[in-house]
Amino acid sequence: MPDQRLEEDSLGQMSLPRTCLWGIHTQRAIDNFPISGLPLALFPEFIRALAWVKKAAARANQGLGVLSAEKTRVIEEVCDEIIAGRWHDAFRVDMIQGGAGTSTNMNANEVIANLGLLKMGFKPGDYAQLHPNDDVNRSQSTNDVYPTAMRLAIVSQCSAFIDAQQRLVDAFAERAEAFKDIRKIGRTQLQDAVPMTLGQEFAGYATTIREDVQIIERLSNLLLEVNLGGTAIGTRVNTPDGYAEAAVAELAEVSGLQAKLATDLIEASSDTGAYVTFSSVLKRIAVKLSKICNDLRLLSSGPRSGFNEIHLPAVQAGSSIMPGKINPVIPEVVNQVAFQVIGNDLTVTMAAEGGQLQLNAFEPIIVLNVLQSMRILMQAMDTLATRCVQGIEANVAQCEGALENSLVLATMLVPHIGYAKAAKIAKTALADGASVADTAVKLGFGTREEIEQMLR
Amino acid sequence: MPDQRLEEDSLGQMSLPRTCLWGIHTQRAIDNFPISGLPLALFPEFIRALAWVKKAAARANQGLGVLSAEKTRVIEEVCDEIIAGRWHDAFRVDMIQGGAGTSTNMNANEVIANLGLLKMGFKPGDYAQLHPNDDVNRSQSTNDVYPTAMRLAIVSQCSAFIDAQQRLVDAFAERAEAFKDIRKIGRTQLQDAVPMTLGQEFAGYATTIREDVQIIERLSNLLLEVNLGGTAIGTRVNTPDGYAEAAVAELAEVSGLQAKLATDLIEASSDTGAYVTFSSVLKRIAVKLSKICNDLRLLSSGPRSGFNEIHLPAVQAGSSIMPGKINPVIPEVVNQVAFQVIGNDLTVTMAAEGGQLQLNAFEPIIVLNVLQSMRILMQAMDTLATRCVQGIEANVAQCEGALENSLVLATMLVPHIGYAKAAKIAKTALADGASVADTAVKLGFGTREEIEQMLR
Amino acid sequence: MPDQRLEEDSLGQMSLPRTCLWGIHTQRAIDNFPISGLPLALFPEFIRALAWVKKAAARANQGLGVLSAEKTRVIEEVCDEIIAGRWHDAFRVDMIQGGAGTSTNMNANEVIANLGLLKMGFKPGDYAQLHPNDDVNRSQSTNDVYPTAMRLAIVSQCSAFIDAQQRLVDAFAERAEAFKDIRKIGRTQLQDAVPMTLGQEFAGYATTIREDVQIIERLSNLLLEVNLGGTAIGTRVNTPDGYAEAAVAELAEVSGLQAKLATDLIEASSDTGAYVTFSSVLKRIAVKLSKICNDLRLLSSGPRSGFNEIHLPAVQAGSSIMPGKINPVIPEVVNQVAFQVIGNDLTVTMAAEGGQLQLNAFEPIIVLNVLQSMRILMQAMDTLATRCVQGIEANVAQCEGALENSLVLATMLVPHIGYAKAAKIAKTALADGASVADTAVKLGFGTREEIEQMLR
Amino acid sequence: MPDQRLEEDSLGQMSLPRTCLWGIHTQRAIDNFPISGLPLALFPEFIRALAWVKKAAARANQGLGVLSAEKTRVIEEVCDEIIAGRWHDAFRVDMIQGGAGTSTNMNANEVIANLGLLKMGFKPGDYAQLHPNDDVNRSQSTNDVYPTAMRLAIVSQCSAFIDAQQRLVDAFAERAEAFKDIRKIGRTQLQDAVPMTLGQEFAGYATTIREDVQIIERLSNLLLEVNLGGTAIGTRVNTPDGYAEAAVAELAEVSGLQAKLATDLIEASSDTGAYVTFSSVLKRIAVKLSKICNDLRLLSSGPRSGFNEIHLPAVQAGSSIMPGKINPVIPEVVNQVAFQVIGNDLTVTMAAEGGQLQLNAFEPIIVLNVLQSMRILMQAMDTLATRCVQGIEANVAQCEGALENSLVLATMLVPHIGYAKAAKIAKTALADGASVADTAVKLGFGTREEIEQMLR
Repeated sequence: MPDQRLEEDSLGQMSLPRTCLWGIHTQRAIDNFPISGLPLALFPEFIRALAWVKKAAARANQGLGVLSAEKTRVIEEVCDEIIAGRWHDAFRVDMIQGGAGTSTNMNANEVIANLGLLKMGFKPGDYAQLHPNDDVNRSQSTNDVYPTAMRLAIVSQCSAFIDAQQRLVDAFAERAEAFKDIRKIGRTQLQDAVPMTLGQEFAGYATTIREDVQIIERLSNLLLEVNLGGTAIGTRVNTPDGYAEAAVAELAEVSGLQAKLATDLIEASSDTGAYVTFSSVLKRIAVKLSKICNDLRLLSSGPRSGFNEIHLPAVQAGSSIMPGKINPVIPEVVNQVAFQVIGNDLTVTMAAEGGQLQLNAFEPIIVLNVLQSMRILMQAMDTLATRCVQGIEANVAQCEGALENSLVLATMLVPHIGYAKAAKIAKTALADGASVADTAVKLGFGTREEIEQMLR
Repeated sequence: MPDQRLEEDSLGQMSLPRTCLWGIHTQRAIDNFPISGLPLALFPEFIRALAWVKKAAARANQGLGVLSAEKTRVIEEVCDEIIAGRWHDAFRVDMIQGGAGTSTNMNANEVIANLGLLKMGFKPGDYAQLHPNDDVNRSQSTNDVYPTAMRLAIVSQCSAFIDAQQRLVDAFAERAEAFKDIRKIGRTQLQDAVPMTLGQEFAGYATTIREDVQIIERLSNLLLEVNLGGTAIGTRVNTPDGYAEAAVAELAEVSGLQAKLATDLIEASSDTGAYVTFSSVLKRIAVKLSKICNDLRLLSSGPRSGFNEIHLPAVQAGSSIMPGKINPVIPEVVNQVAFQVIGNDLTVTMAAEGGQLQLNAFEPIIVLNVLQSMRILMQAMDTLATRCVQGIEANVAQCEGALENSLVLATMLVPHIGYAKAAKIAKTALADGASVADTAVKLGFGTREEIEQMLR
Repeated sequence: MPDQRLEEDSLGQMSLPRTCLWGIHTQRAIDNFPISGLPLALFPEFIRALAWVKKAAARANQGLGVLSAEKTRVIEEVCDEIIAGRWHDAFRVDMIQGGAGTSTNMNANEVIANLGLLKMGFKPGDYAQLHPNDDVNRSQSTNDVYPTAMRLAIVSQCSAFIDAQQRLVDAFAERAEAFKDIRKIGRTQLQDAVPMTLGQEFAGYATTIREDVQIIERLSNLLLEVNLGGTAIGTRVNTPDGYAEAAVAELAEVSGLQAKLATDLIEASSDTGAYVTFSSVLKRIAVKLSKICNDLRLLSSGPRSGFNEIHLPAVQAGSSIMPGKINPVIPEVVNQVAFQVIGNDLTVTMAAEGGQLQLNAFEPIIVLNVLQSMRILMQAMDTLATRCVQGIEANVAQCEGALENSLVLATMLVPHIGYAKAAKIAKTALADGASVADTAVKLGFGTREEIEQMLR
Repeated sequence: MPDQRLEEDSLGQMSLPRTCLWGIHTQRAIDNFPISGLPLALFPEFIRALAWVKKAAARANQGLGVLSAEKTRVIEEVCDEIIAGRWHDAFRVDMIQGGAGTSTNMNANEVIANLGLLKMGFKPGDYAQLHPNDDVNRSQSTNDVYPTAMRLAIVSQCSAFIDAQQRLVDAFAERAEAFKDIRKIGRTQLQDAVPMTLGQEFAGYATTIREDVQIIERLSNLLLEVNLGGTAIGTRVNTPDGYAEAAVAELAEVSGLQAKLATDLIEASSDTGAYVTFSSVLKRIAVKLSKICNDLRLLSSGPRSGFNEIHLPAVQAGSSIMPGKINPVIPEVVNQVAFQVIGNDLTVTMAAEGGQLQLNAFEPIIVLNVLQSMRILMQAMDTLATRCVQGIEANVAQCEGALENSLVLATMLVPHIGYAKAAKIAKTALADGASVADTAVKLGFGTREEIEQMLR
């Protein structure tokens, strides 16, 4: 067929469209993994990181004399285009794939080779001029390229992630300041407890999220330890002397991220502990967000038969059948994102546990879950900040009215009259439907002035 | 030493106290697995099931002419004592053990042999007269004995488990009947919704738990498919003809449980799917109980700044600092049991996934987690029924007052005046702090009589 | 603007493209939930199920006299087109959404209304003629429509799911037959154990998957209990008498699935136990598949330094650096699918636990995870059957050679000479590098003829 | 009854044995929570930490003039005895308890009060002389005492935990040194890959565990931020000025651990993020240990039909039916511990997510799971080091023989002759059962000398 070209690998020949940017290895992988329908192209941060690695490797190879200046230049140009966002739709392999990422690496190698061939004036598939394995993948193995790209892809998203965290911190902190004089009842175990301010409550939310900003910063450093140059199992087989150090230095320059060479390349080839840790931190953030959103939903419950201490901004009508109902849809979506992130963390855990000997073949499912968790958490935090927290209003009358009415004010009498008497006051007040102050006076534990002094 | 006896295995000799009921294999296992501090003896249902298996095997062996009448009689007598609850403290190996349960099986074999030797007038350790492997374990392997005992241990607890479920169903159903005329506001997404009765709410709890009684019944049948007689890998190696069938028939008689021989003994030797399913059902029950307890805590929140529709019985003072505070401690402990069961289910899942080829070596952690989950769920359901649900009282004034006040009554106008107008009423009433009926009349959507008719 | 139309809800006005098929509620939801980038349209089975529900509701409404014949006819026509696969790209809300599915329901209501308006000769947005809430959603609430559609969507995939299971069963069974005379060593705890055939091993895989076919069949029945007609909280508010029964009968006819009305509609409105159970079964299947794929990878390990008993078909070159390497990429992708399904099950569990009072607002994340798990499992089973199992070949020389060489043949001497002597033979043979038979004879436990007889 | 004494709380009176060390609050809790059968006394590190807190609080109270010198002295003396390990069996409440730890706190308050009363010459129960709440619990709430004790209990175990980690690191490092010259085949995806040494493999295990020593050290610092002095919800209610700072300073001195006062006490009262993080790290360690143990089991598989590259020390006979079989029981028990720790981590996650408003009532299940995970991991690491790793021997003949035989040596030809030709050699050698070197020469890719040079 005139529109087709033939490619060959160790399994045999295959016909591809003449202008197809990928080659036989990629096509076999597309055919082999019709799993999730989520192609590599859905994760541009990952494709960009692959291009960083390929560019860095080419430059290191040239520096060490094992790749010609022309091939290096062409590979660099193609990588720069990919880094800029072009050609991503040629990355077609399913994110869920067997083979420890070999198909992803070969997708990159083949696309880069074919684009390079076009630049050099040759046809796609004319690999004698520029070879996916011998040139683009030179001194590399999937087993160092793929995890290095995974790590850089994750790190490259950390800055936007931290921005989303910070926006949410700021939104809570701003509301905390606005609410700082609104007194309300604190609650433990869903039961009325001692007084606090609504501002303290919101400041606590800001504090707890702020803590995790630093954790993400620290972890992104940990992820920058890469095994590039270790090749197949960390023994540097098929690399020229000094290659690993040179390639990682180039990678730092190319990506702008402070990549460092891991100390024990054997360990670094199979270890997935860094992903377990990173995913655990995403889980920690999810747990906190879910707790906060549960609180926001509780505090805004009602409007008439609930806590009703705050009003969430109405962002859509709440019900297809109950007119006027406004639901806490933004906290609800964040809760669900949290559940997804927690589930994804388990997937990462199981995949990490499944590593065997010199490699973990399940890195593709790890990177999918980590990148997806980052993405939905980021979106969730942003949505929570901008469509909910920033617009929260206090229901001052409800907050302050409930406080006056509270039985747990009896707590504040304990240092003065002891636990047992205070308990008697609380119990009597509950039975009588009376206030703590009135009951304390009635039971003779002090004059009204004395009691009111104790309750300050 | 005069108080010691010597035993020997393929690794060498070991000295044991002369009267020690267990032998060298057990002692090595005690030394090898100082892990959790939870010995077999903590799970008497499991020890009893082991004794059922040993007794059944002995009877089948005798019937097929490979075990003498005297040895059989002695083994039966000892097993009967163990079944009755004696000698359990001689089962000392840690529940968390390597070796796929071999150490548990040998602990049983050695204790039975030594107790039998005493009955026969010999000394412990005189295995030429009655051998732990050649006699007690005759025609058996850990790989069929252990999973068979696991299954019977679980099934033997199902009846008590179902009783606990049923008590909880009854408690909810009784309260549902008591509350059947108390009208209240229903809530969706923690927001006020349309009317219901408190009785309907509690009847729903009864319904949802009742469903699971049948599931436990059905599953306990599934667990009765055992691989006894398959020996090491399901090929019946080292058993006389007809042994598996005979042993399982004896087992059914000895245990009173309808044990059946699995069809594919190879599959049955390594498959742990039945535990995954059983543990999943425990998880399902846990999820439902946790949701119900969350509801009970919400409905009893307050007493003054919460939903306050029901009162849970006070079972202890709630706070070391806040006198008069009563907390929902029983639902809280049930929530925590649920979380433990859900975590245990994950442990079971991972252990099941870790099976390899003809065996799953991780059955010890599976049986520990399933039996522990059953136990704490049973206790939790019983505690919930007797110390909480049975004593719940309704706060009628709060239930009915809140209903009259509700804006979502506007929903009931929709079939008459349409969604858009009803929404307008709800919104206006909220802004004005007015009732739905008043607002509907004020906005001219009907006379008072017409509106009240619609709201019936 | 001439190309725009105005729509209004209780929050205010919004401008939409004049021909836009969705309306203001959908658009607000699109804006509110920019979370995962996975729109409803990615799950056609879910959209089809929504259309079934809407069509059934319209027919029931007409039968009960609350919807005109013309409106009913138009709604039916539109639904039929959606069922046939048209208009799916108008279902744009993110699968991860707050609001308990209200936005999904409104997306359906608005698209159906606007398509109906076009059929009736009106313009989109002219809701006075055909109203998304008052007509399309008549007698309905998100809280019965959404879970009903979830259940039917899941059930509608069960048949294809079972086909995939069956194909995998058939593939293993066919190979089991082909391998039935190939003797090999069985292994427990990764150590050489007693003999079996490769056919028995593969038959076990067929058995274990076959069991789950029936479970899926039974569960799909359980999912057919729907709460359609319960509306907001299960009290049938805003439905004409007899509506629930009529709507469910219509639904069964429209969908061809045996939908039944749940007995306790209050319970059915908030209960998500059926999804927990269904997802648990998907997890069970995942656990089994992962165990099997671990086995396939073990059995094919090598080719020279591994077990090497079977050859998996080569479906792609295995390495970008190691020429000639063929990796078990199909089992690996199935392992990863299993890990994803197990993680998704946790997400479902947490969402189910999060239900509150009369509703579970987290159903959107539940349906996303269940449908995604079904899809990837189905694809994984199909891929495993067609691209791996069907082409597996036995390495007969390796299987049979290893068996002859095995020490554990000593096991077969136990019934004849006892455990202790057999252990001595095994230990001596290992030390001498000799065979069990030779060693048994050398140690004087029998003549060669006797020993060989015992080893048969 | 002469042997009984009466105590009273807000729910009524209760009779207790006259000399009983605990009081009415503890007894109610024992009755209310018959859940797991695991009493507080099983966790001495937790009881000791409670005593540290009580002693520190008493000293701070005295310093601020709100507790008499005599009461302080008595409380200190009793706490010192508890810290030294006495009276632990008076801590009887179930570890799984409702009430956010109130019952644990009251168990401590009552036991300390009654022991103090005995020291002062009074009878147990004579609380007018020394009161569990007003004196022992002075300036305290369960909500600051309990989490503070949780944190110190965990931190106090970190040193022993790190010792266990370090012993395992040392064991692997020592073996790595011993194996440093043993060449073997590396494996990726269970397929033969390129050469490495057995020493490199074991050094990798040492490296990966060593990393986590530092993480535990860092985290134990994070856990030292306590909320003591925040009392009920973090507002310091019922504490004298300066109490929190004073109490935490005393706590640091009393415990010898560098406790610090948290900055935001409101946040610190309800946040359980530190436990999520700590438990995640235990999970990370578990994942790594499980992977390593999977490797050890693979590498020692056989003895004749497996990888057989290493011999694990025989610690017990492996089978009740297969004589001579030695199983990898120590790695197997570690795998199971890992699965338990991973399940426990999920329990911690769910409990943390369940916090509401100013408190997390589910801390009891959190501390149970974290302490149990620490304990079994510690034991597992110690057992692995001493009963397995230290005694591992290499099977040098197998390691080196397999390497020579390997096809993947073709990889090393790639830089010289390119990927395609090397792939052809590997494929031909596999088909011919020949070596890479022979095949390369036969196919004409170089002289024998050249090829051997490339393979160096």
